Amino acid sequence: MTDLPSHDIELRVRYGETDRMGVVYHAEYLAWCEMGRTEYIRSLGMSYAEMERRGVPLAVAEATIRYHAPAKYDDLIRVSTVLSRQGSRTLTFDYVITHAESGQRLASASTTLVALDRDGKATTMPPDIRALLSRSVDR
Amino acid sequence: MTDLPSHDIELRVRYGETDRMGVVYHAEYLAWCEMGRTEYIRSLGMSYAEMERRGVPLAVAEATIRYHAPAKYDDLIRVSTVLSRQGSRTLTFDYVITHAESGQRLASASTTLVALDRDGKATTMPPDIRALLSRSVDR
Amino acid sequence: MTDLPSHDIELRVRYGETDRMGVVYHAEYLAWCEMGRTEYIRSLGMSYAEMERRGVPLAVAEATIRYHAPAKYDDLIRVSTVLSRQGSRTLTFDYVITHAESGQRLASASTTLVALDRDGKATTMPPDIRALLSRSVDR
Amino acid sequence: MTDLPSHDIELRVRYGETDRMGVVYHAEYLAWCEMGRTEYIRSLGMSYAEMERRGVPLAVAEATIRYHAPAKYDDLIRVSTVLSRQGSRTLTFDYVITHAESGQRLASASTTLVALDRDGKATTMPPDIRALLSRSVDR
Repeated sequence: MTDLPSHDIELRVRYGETDRMGVVYHAEYLAWCEMGRTEYIRSLGMSYAEMERRGVPLAVAEATIRYHAPAKYDDLIRVSTVLSRQGSRTLTFDYVITHAESGQRLASASTTLVALDRDGKATTMPPDIRALLSRSVDR
Repeated sequence: MTDLPSHDIELRVRYGETDRMGVVYHAEYLAWCEMGRTEYIRSLGMSYAEMERRGVPLAVAEATIRYHAPAKYDDLIRVSTVLSRQGSRTLTFDYVITHAESGQRLASASTTLVALDRDGKATTMPPDIRALLSRSVDR
Repeated sequence: MTDLPSHDIELRVRYGETDRMGVVYHAEYLAWCEMGRTEYIRSLGMSYAEMERRGVPLAVAEATIRYHAPAKYDDLIRVSTVLSRQGSRTLTFDYVITHAESGQRLASASTTLVALDRDGKATTMPPDIRALLSRSVDR
Repeated sequence: MTDLPSHDIELRVRYGETDRMGVVYHAEYLAWCEMGRTEYIRSLGMSYAEMERRGVPLAVAEATIRYHAPAKYDDLIRVSTVLSRQGSRTLTFDYVITHAESGQRLASASTTLVALDRDGKATTMPPDIRALLSRSVDR
């Protein structure tokens, strides 16, 4: 992920995101990844909400996540997002989730999203959206 | 709630529903209430999904919940639901949430739902749906 | 809520917080209330995490919420929190949830929390914590 | 996954599990996987809650999931779980998530869990638990 432009967000762990093991429940990290890519897209000049209004929803087709260390209640978390691969119909985002203060790596993840048409079939993204996104991708 | 016909469901507490206090996070009970009223409606002969397809979504307008004792991971929970009040545009459901094995009361709750039209405004429910529901209400 | 000092937070609606009605799922607001009171307490000079470490967890004993208008995906939300009542063992927080840009009121809520001892029984809060909180309450 | 003994559970999609795209939010599937492996372990004669009481919590170290078709509100879902690999400190479970009535495949997933000691370090599982689990694994 060295040369790609990344976008960082910070969030504070909510009480309800923890589980009885005393740490953040593993499924919550996927929501954090989504927050990361939402702000990544916004930083390019178009909100994901706007993409949906244009009729180009992106569905998650695949997600992989490795958990290195637990996030805890009230921790300040950083999510660094990069768009690592762009196809005509798919986008792959990579994420590094760290403890914002210590820099400790907590998780690394990757999600591949596919553009859908109104019938829910995979479709090619419109040229202007592809151009917008491609500004940030190493191809 | 003595004379109204109630409908019971059982569910098992999921790990992700707990928080670091070791008990179920308080917001999760509202989802259990919704499961309870969904099955209550289904027991009358129409699914809530079907009501939505007919263009009569029900939005929660008010919710009140009292927590008596904590639910814990892997507990078997019973949700008893009654339709306690039916207006032309609103429905009020009451819930008693207990530990299924011991019968211990864990929470009691009430939610009022309002029928919405396609613009999101409160609207009168169709006569046949009102008739269906009224079979079960003490008026 | 006129004279009590309130504390405001802002948050952006996450995709996963919405439901198929296209608006935020009603149970999610309780998590926002918790974020509100967490930051309210932090603004007084002690984090809620620190209160738990001191052995004074606060459990939600009662919650009431009225929904006035729906919150939507990607909306910027403001949660205004006040500590409206302080007892020796209980705290009641009131919340007003608004759309941050338009100021439209989306929901109003109230939660009563009770201090628990190590056995999960209601207990009197330590004097220094009571003093800290009482600075902000209208008594 | 042909020869390994699998364990099936069924669940009904909750309203709050959907998002504004009208389908189940992608992170929810990980909670379903957890329900699947919980019941898988119970079917061997020991509950996961009991494993935790014995001081052998299992933390998710890695999760991968592919989404084939969307699950929708009120759908009846089947989760088929197999323990596909057992190490001295790790367990890998594979899941196939289908629409219970049509049999349509909705998602396939895999999670690797690691046994932790009281300090949160990876540790070898006790012999009796390993023996219990190994009954069901192709080694």
